[in-house]
This record gives sequence, C-alpha cells and structure tokens, in this order.
Amino acid sequence: MMGQNTMTQQKLNALLKECQPLYQRGATADYIPILQNVDPSLLGACLTTDTELCLTAGAFDYPFSIQSIVKVIIFASCLMENDLDAISRKVSVEPTSDRFNSIKSLELNNGNRPLNPMINAGAIACLSLVKGDRAQEKVEKIRSLISRMAGREDIRVNMDIFQSEKQTGYRNRALAYYMQSTGILSPDQDVEMLLDAYFQACSISVTCVDLARIALVLAENGISRQDGAEILPKQIARILKATMMICGMYNESGHVAVHIGLPTKSGVGGGILSVVPEKMGIGIFGPALDGAGNSVAGLALLEKISRYLDVSIF
Amino acid sequence: MMGQNTMTQQKLNALLKECQPLYQRGATADYIPILQNVDPSLLGACLTTDTELCLTAGAFDYPFSIQSIVKVIIFASCLMENDLDAISRKVSVEPTSDRFNSIKSLELNNGNRPLNPMINAGAIACLSLVKGDRAQEKVEKIRSLISRMAGREDIRVNMDIFQSEKQTGYRNRALAYYMQSTGILSPDQDVEMLLDAYFQACSISVTCVDLARIALVLAENGISRQDGAEILPKQIARILKATMMICGMYNESGHVAVHIGLPTKSGVGGGILSVVPEKMGIGIFGPALDGAGNSVAGLALLEKISRYLDVSIF
Amino acid sequence: MMGQNTMTQQKLNALLKECQPLYQRGATADYIPILQNVDPSLLGACLTTDTELCLTAGAFDYPFSIQSIVKVIIFASCLMENDLDAISRKVSVEPTSDRFNSIKSLELNNGNRPLNPMINAGAIACLSLVKGDRAQEKVEKIRSLISRMAGREDIRVNMDIFQSEKQTGYRNRALAYYMQSTGILSPDQDVEMLLDAYFQACSISVTCVDLARIALVLAENGISRQDGAEILPKQIARILKATMMICGMYNESGHVAVHIGLPTKSGVGGGILSVVPEKMGIGIFGPALDGAGNSVAGLALLEKISRYLDVSIF
Amino acid sequence: MMGQNTMTQQKLNALLKECQPLYQRGATADYIPILQNVDPSLLGACLTTDTELCLTAGAFDYPFSIQSIVKVIIFASCLMENDLDAISRKVSVEPTSDRFNSIKSLELNNGNRPLNPMINAGAIACLSLVKGDRAQEKVEKIRSLISRMAGREDIRVNMDIFQSEKQTGYRNRALAYYMQSTGILSPDQDVEMLLDAYFQACSISVTCVDLARIALVLAENGISRQDGAEILPKQIARILKATMMICGMYNESGHVAVHIGLPTKSGVGGGILSVVPEKMGIGIFGPALDGAGNSVAGLALLEKISRYLDVSIF
Repeated sequence: MMGQNTMTQQKLNALLKECQPLYQRGATADYIPILQNVDPSLLGACLTTDTELCLTAGAFDYPFSIQSIVKVIIFASCLMENDLDAISRKVSVEPTSDRFNSIKSLELNNGNRPLNPMINAGAIACLSLVKGDRAQEKVEKIRSLISRMAGREDIRVNMDIFQSEKQTGYRNRALAYYMQSTGILSPDQDVEMLLDAYFQACSISVTCVDLARIALVLAENGISRQDGAEILPKQIARILKATMMICGMYNESGHVAVHIGLPTKSGVGGGILSVVPEKMGIGIFGPALDGAGNSVAGLALLEKISRYLDVSIF
Repeated sequence: MMGQNTMTQQKLNALLKECQPLYQRGATADYIPILQNVDPSLLGACLTTDTELCLTAGAFDYPFSIQSIVKVIIFASCLMENDLDAISRKVSVEPTSDRFNSIKSLELNNGNRPLNPMINAGAIACLSLVKGDRAQEKVEKIRSLISRMAGREDIRVNMDIFQSEKQTGYRNRALAYYMQSTGILSPDQDVEMLLDAYFQACSISVTCVDLARIALVLAENGISRQDGAEILPKQIARILKATMMICGMYNESGHVAVHIGLPTKSGVGGGILSVVPEKMGIGIFGPALDGAGNSVAGLALLEKISRYLDVSIF
Repeated sequence: MMGQNTMTQQKLNALLKECQPLYQRGATADYIPILQNVDPSLLGACLTTDTELCLTAGAFDYPFSIQSIVKVIIFASCLMENDLDAISRKVSVEPTSDRFNSIKSLELNNGNRPLNPMINAGAIACLSLVKGDRAQEKVEKIRSLISRMAGREDIRVNMDIFQSEKQTGYRNRALAYYMQSTGILSPDQDVEMLLDAYFQACSISVTCVDLARIALVLAENGISRQDGAEILPKQIARILKATMMICGMYNESGHVAVHIGLPTKSGVGGGILSVVPEKMGIGIFGPALDGAGNSVAGLALLEKISRYLDVSIF
Repeated sequence: MMGQNTMTQQKLNALLKECQPLYQRGATADYIPILQNVDPSLLGACLTTDTELCLTAGAFDYPFSIQSIVKVIIFASCLMENDLDAISRKVSVEPTSDRFNSIKSLELNNGNRPLNPMINAGAIACLSLVKGDRAQEKVEKIRSLISRMAGREDIRVNMDIFQSEKQTGYRNRALAYYMQSTGILSPDQDVEMLLDAYFQACSISVTCVDLARIALVLAENGISRQDGAEILPKQIARILKATMMICGMYNESGHVAVHIGLPTKSGVGGGILSVVPEKMGIGIFGPALDGAGNSVAGLALLEKISRYLDVSIF
C-alpha cells in the first residue's frame, strides 16, 4: 500500500503464518480469570486504509475484550470535556518504566499524580473527569465513541468479562482508593461506581476490524473515512498518538518505538491497535501475552508489517 | 521508684510542666477530621508499678482514642490464635524507614508482605488472622483484651471517631485491597468488614491510666499485678516488647531506642505506651504530633522520665 | 518552508523575541560550576533544510558545551560498533520518569541495566562499548562524528569545562562504580579513564548552527546534504530518533512529544537539538534551565516553531 | 552463669555440635574473593563474663576479618570525637529494611543521609567524621580501640583481605561518591583515602575471644573488666547497644530482636558479636552466610544460647 512495498493478501497471510507459533512463548492473562479461557494460539489482523480497502487474516473477526486499549478512548473522552492543563493537575503525560498496575509511583513521584493516562491509575483518574453521575453515563460515552470510530453501532460490553474483572479487581480498587487518599480523586467520588464504569469500559467487546478502523480515525487526524465527519479534533488525535508512542506499550514502549516506530496501544485481552499516521489503521489480536502484558505473536506481526511497509515514523 | 533516682509526685509534676509547652511544635492529626477538635495543649501521664503505687499528672484521665497503640493488642490477639511462623508468612517483623501508612514497600519488598505489625498494613493483615466472621467478633476480642490488661470492664469504642475514620479511611482501604491483590488477604476476605473492625479497634477510648496498666502487664511478662493471673503468655509479651522496640515508633523508632531505650508504642490520638521491663508501665497523652506522627510533648516527657530514672534497657 | 506556513527570517526573529524573556523562569546549571558564568538571557536558533537555506537568529553563533546532547552521538558511535541486541544486555531503550542522574533505578529495575542511553548511566555504559583503550581514542570518535555531521573540522573540547566537570563529577563517578559493582561495566574497566572520556565528550563546544546541521543529518536518515555521503546508516538514524522521542528530554519527554512532536535532545549547557524527519534540522541555545534540566526559553521557542510550521510527527 | 540455667562447657559443646551442620544452608561471602577461601564448616564460640571465666568451643581461636562488626567500633570512635547531634546531620540512627549495601535510600530518603551507622554508607560517613588526614590515622584509632576492648595489643589488619576488598570495592566506592555528590561527604574529602581506611578497618583480624571481650566491655557500660578502666563513656556504650539492637543485623534485625533479644552485630567474615547487658559478652564465628549476610550456624547457636540462658532483654 505504501513505502517500497505494498501489502497484499498473500503477504499478510504469510507474515501471520510465520508469527502465529510464537504464541507458545506467552500465556493468556491470569489475573482476570475469564481471560484464561481463550485459545492462546489465535492470531488475527486487519489493515485498513479506508472502508473500501481492508485486508484481513486469521482470527480477524474473533471478538475479545478491549481492555487497556480503551485507555486511549477514555483519554479521548476526557480531552473532549477537559483541557489538557486541567487534566495535567490530576494525571501527567510522562512515560514510566513501572508496570501498568504499579502503585509505588503514586507514592513516590510527581505530586502523587499517575504518570500518564495509559497506566491503570491514570486511566481511572481520567475516567473520573468524564462527566457522569452514574457508571452507565460514563460507559455510554466511551462505548459510543468506540462505536463511531469503529463505524459499527452494535458495540457492547461483555458482561461476563465485566463480572470477572469486578470480582478480582483488587489492584484497581487499591489504586483508586490510594488516589482518593491523596486528593487525585475527590472525597465525594463514589469509587465503586467509578470502578464499575472502568471495568465495563475494559470489557467492551471488539474485533481486529474494529481496532483497525479506530486506528484509521486517529491516522486521519480524527476524520471518519466513511463520511468525512470529524469524530475527534485534530489536536486531540495528535495528543493521543503522541501519548501512545511514549507510553502505550507499558514498559516495552521504547522497544516498540525503536523496532516498530508507530503509535500503538495494547490490551491484556490480546488486542493491539497501531496507527500509521495519515496512512493506515492496524488491528491485531493474539491472546498469549509476554511478561510486559503485550501480545507475543501480535507484537512480532506488527513489527514485520512495519518493516515490510517501511512505515516507522522515525 | 528505681535506678539512682525515685520518681515523686513533685518531680513528675515538674517534668510535665517543663514539657507541656512543646505542644506548640506539633499539631493534631489532620487526616481523621474529628481528631483535630482536641485541645493540642493537653498533656497527661501515669506511671504505675502496681495497683497500689500509681503516680498521675496533668490530663491523666482525659479519654482519647487508642489509635495505633491498638496494633500491639491486635498483634497480641493474633499471636494467641496463630503461631509466629504462620503469621510470618503474611507479615514479617522487620523494621522499616517508611511512614506508617506507606504502600510502596508492599510492592517492592519482602514478597509483598507488610514489614511489621506496627505499620497500618501489617496491623490490618494481623487483624485478618484474628478469627471472627463479623467485625464485632474481632473487635470484641481486642476490646476485651484491653479491658483485662487495663483492669477495667467499661472499655468502649468511641463511635464518633469510628465513623470519622471509616469515612476518610481511603489509605487503609488502598492498603487492604492491595494486600488482597497480592494474596496477603485471601480473595474471600470481606475487606470492608475487616476495615470496619480495624477502624473500631483504633477508636477504642482509653486514658493514660489505662495505657500505664496495659504497659505494666507487658512489663510483668503477661501477668496481672491485680490478681496474679496470666493474661498473656510470657513468650508473647516478649515478642510484643521486641517488636515495639524495633518498630513501634514509626520512623522515629531508632531515636526512641537510642534516647529512651524502652519498648514504646504511640498512636496518632496522642497516646504513648511505654514499658520498663519487669518494673513499670507508663502511659502518656499529648495530642499535638510531630512529623512522624508521635506526640511531641509526650515523647519529650518520656525521654525525661527515662533519663531521670535511668531505665533504658541498653 | 513546509506545512501550512513557511518560516521567514522575520517570523523567526519575532518568535525568538517573544520567547527570550522566559529565561527569567529558569537558571543556569549549578552543579558544573563553570556553566554558571554564562549569561542566562542568551537565546539563539538555527533552522536548516540544506546547506544553502539556513535561517539564524539571536545568539546563533555563541559557543556552548554540548553536554547531554552528546549522548545521541555516543549512542550513534556505540551502534556503529555494536549491534542493538548486544547493547541491550547493558542498556535498555525504555523511557523512565526518573531524573537524568538518578541512581535508584540501577538498583531496583531492569536487571541493573540503565533504562536508556539518554540518562547519564546509560550514556556512560554506551561509551564503555565504544572501543578505545585510552580516553583520547573514545573522545576522538565522538568528536570526529560530530565534526562530520556538523560539516566543520574544528570541533574541539573546551578544556576548562572539562576540568570543571571532572572535579565535581561525583554523581557520575557513583553511577559508574555502581555499574561496575553489578557487572554492567566489567571489573577491568578503568572507570576514571572512562569518566575522563565522558566528561570530555560532554565538554565539546558547539553552536546552534552545528546542532541544526547534526539534526539535519538525522532528518535525512544519515545522509549528508553537503556531499550526499552516508554518515550514519538509515537504521541507526532511525533508532536515534525513536530514542530521542521517548527519552531525550528527561522527565519532560512526554510533554515534548505531546506539545512539540519532534525527536529532540537537550543538554544542561542550554542546547536543544530537534529533528523534523525528512525535512529540517533545528538547533537552539538558551542557558537558563527549568527544573528538569531543559532550556526554558529554548523549549518555548521550539514549541512555537513546531506549531507554526505544523510539523509534529503525530 | 545466669537466669534459670547456667552455661557449662559441656552444654556449650553440645549446642555448638547441634548447630554446626547448619552451615550447609549458607555460603561464604562471594563479593570479596578472598573470603571464599575459608572453610564454610567452621564454627566457634566464646562466652565471657570476666577475664577469669571464659567458655570457648570449636574454632574459637580461628582468626577472621571483622568486617561489618567494625561498624560498631567506627561509630564508637565517631561518638568519641563528635556529639550525636552533629553526627545526625550526616547519618541518622533509624532502622531500614534495605540491604546493607543498598544505594537507593540515599536518593529517596532522609535528606540523602544514610539511615544508620550499621549500613555501609553510614559507616563510611561516620569514618569520615573520625579525625585523621591520612588513612593510617583513622585506621589506627579503630585498631587501637579494638585492641583496648579486646585486651590484646597485637590486633592487626590482614593486608591480603584489605587488598582483595580494595580491588573489588566498587559498591562502596559508588556509595561514597554518591554521598559526596549530595554533600554528606564534603567536596574536599579524599574519597579513595577514606575508602582505604574503611577497607583496612573491615580487614582487621579477630577471633571469637576478641569479639566476646569487646562485647563484654559494652555489657559493662564501657568499663574494662581487666583493670576497671573506662574505655568508653556509659552514654556511648548505651547508644551502641541500642543501635545494634535496631539495625545491627541488616534486614534480619527484627528476627534477632524477637528470637534472641540481645544487641548484636554481624559481619560477612562470619563473625557475630552479641551483648548481654551487664552480664556477658558473646563472640561467635561461622563463615557460611544466609541471604541477609549473617552467619547461618552462628545465628542459630546464638539463639540457642539466648534461650537456654533466658537472657533476652525483653
């Protein structure tokens, strides 16, 4: 499609076939019990440059929970209701070498602010800034933004996954209450309501095609390819891409910047969303994760795609 | 009473008068709103060697909430139902330089175990090991042990303080859920029930006289001076005193060991309980706290008493 | 020159004039005594797209020490002699929220490896991988690479600055010996020699024009605009730009990614080198630094230039 | 000798025989190469109450390097030349849960002060406060104080061990230079000279009998049993014992307080010095260390002795 090489169906199939066995080096997420039931050998991909041209391969239509990829959407919703300076008083946008669910940096660093919106604490703090007195209001804003970006009305929360997360969400509960103790969340914030909204948002069910289409909207600076409508202001799309680049891949963000060179976000459901600015949206699904929480086979596939198309932004 | 010098009523009055103005260097605890209502200039003391001989001075009969001093009693109750090795799998008995409500060491150190039973996380974990399906059962064990040690039936929880702590106990909630995420608290532990019990235990109302009598039981290796009954086994009394020495005074434990040399425990309610092994129990109350959370005037008074009587155990 | 707007001499002068007073919010670096002698109100800039077209303004020809910007050149030299996998066993390429001279992450994280080549420890470790038995050999490689990239033979070390750094380089000494204690530096590494080389490299004297030309080589994927020669392989230029993006600006890297969107590296000498991929090289000098160690007025100017030209890569 | 039981030669032999096989659970220190040459199965002990009565068993006269036990003597020398308040501006006396050679707390805590004189950084800082322009002057003060306490003129530095430590002392070098970067050591401190003195002090050769005699002086509040001379003021002896109790056994200090209850200091040479206040000095040697750096068999033996004699101070 671009650069020196053009992606073809045949080439995509070949790359996927090459990467699929790598799932054996990883494992499905174990701290959300229901995620362990997924077949770890699945691998799917979708590349889209517009609604007409869309290459898919493997388990491209297998539904999975969006998990941490929703942090991009939460941050987007937060930016549509609050300016960046106001958000910065609660959450900075700086990278971290800590794990996504680490709590120590809330105590040690940065005036108790979560370092960025791509770690759990930061996403929960951003979601508190998305207006809504009830969990349902917050979730609907997130769901409908995903819906518009993916160009599909029937985006839904997977309630089984939500229940599983809610029951075992001890760490997120600790992060939220810790933030309440330091004033990042206000004393009158209903933390359990906020966590309900967060767990539901993480449990939204998507496919590789959805992720590719969401990525394409970011690639196109917020404009929908389907109808030319502005779903996000350009400035917000830019903030999202910059944030994904510097902290979207947990403590492998540097590896992804150097070896892939695209704004990318992963989730422990196995999804990867990657943006080729002004050119392409990429969605990948592979549920077996590496130690940092990223899809093993999915990340390898993304690297091969980026290299083949020579689309690193650096 | 001992050493080179003997404490007299006159001398105690003089020492208290000397230390009382130091309250101006401190402030009442601000994170439990109701504690701020106490007059910061209060200072009281009680020294007791047996039920007959008991010197008191100042606000010796002013009731205040026991707060962290209850950690000694929680650990005692825990030791009466669990052996130290079993407890050690959940809570170690090592000192720390972190603050009493720090969370980072739960992530960084020690297999996620709280470092000792004298910091909040450790006390909550110990309380989870005190049998009881309902908060009331756990609290009653703590309350009745205090009652027996203080030789007073009508020890009670101050329900206003309990409510104030419960409403603002975000940090303790974070500590407890974090421990649940790492398995220190089991998945089926009802955390809110456990915290209710903890907040009630911290809200038990005592006076300097109560603290001095409790300290005397520890000084006497678990034996009640009133009736000669064994309230605690000697081995447990010894563990409690050693633990108080190395970590009872938060991050001023070293200062207290060097300058006072007695097993001591403080609470943010302003209380200090100090043990002269085999000789004396000391209870002090002064609600204005220093930066570490210890009574400013109370600690100064304890140091003067220890020096005058020359009772450091070192 | 690009985007919606074209930069003109008049516009650049205006932007510089607007930003210059911001120096009052910062201060010259205080931990290298000699750097404090520089006039903090200086501000200069150079933008170059090729050797013919080169806009300059303010103190564009004022010589200053390259300081941390040399880390880009050290990493480049290291990559020309070692492959990235081999380097990765000593230094990872992951961002950090710690300060540039922090030591704690060497103890806590990442198998004792410095997190990236843009913090002091990482740069020192990279320099140990640049072959050379004597400091002079290592320094000459760095100096001559700068010389080729800047297109100027007479690049020199400022020996006064070198002496000042050497005398007060306690922290870097600590970092280096710590790395020797964990095996990142080998037991037979002569640490004082290595530090001599590092301090000399940091003391190389440059101007805004030099930085702009160096940046242009990176923008052009390693090719010299002067004679079309390949100074760096494309793959190395790409790694350098990705690394600058995610960790070039210390703990303001996220801020720069979001608000400027260009691979950028700063030094405590007051210099900023910024790359507009495939388009432009930017060099800025303003010695008054903010709390993170970046030029206050320089960073503001870079942000205005990036916005005016609309050249964020996101 | 005291309590319920009296120690006899036969009993001591039996306890030593019981504990000796435990050496198999440990290993000799590996970071000072020469220490690895010692037979790990050695175990010796000496208990002394005065110069007449002195029980010995096993390898009681085997010479070994004093290592960290010298920190007690360095702190003593420091206290004889500086008052505690002055020292406290450089080194606090608070326990820590970090390892003895940890550097991170110098960055994170306590105004960059080492937490106590029993960790490497704290001992080096204390040694800088012992007057002496040359290493030899400082070392001689330490050596002669050991000599007086042990009642033996011919106490000497083992120069082979000194050389081995000096060559591999990277971590201590890092600690010292880090302290120089934060002002705990002054800019004009000759760090290499100070480290030479520190490494020589750690390399002083002693036996169990020496350690027992040194401990007895502390037990007797600074008074020599041999001739009744005051070697240390009582107040300094008390500070030393309190400090040993709360931080003498690295991150096993709490375990020792609870299970043994005696002020104790260990060294990675395998030595343990333990004080029964006002009663007895104990010296033990067993070179196989546990994970915290304490003699495995030696610590077990000390625990058995303390229990048998019932001499815990708690």
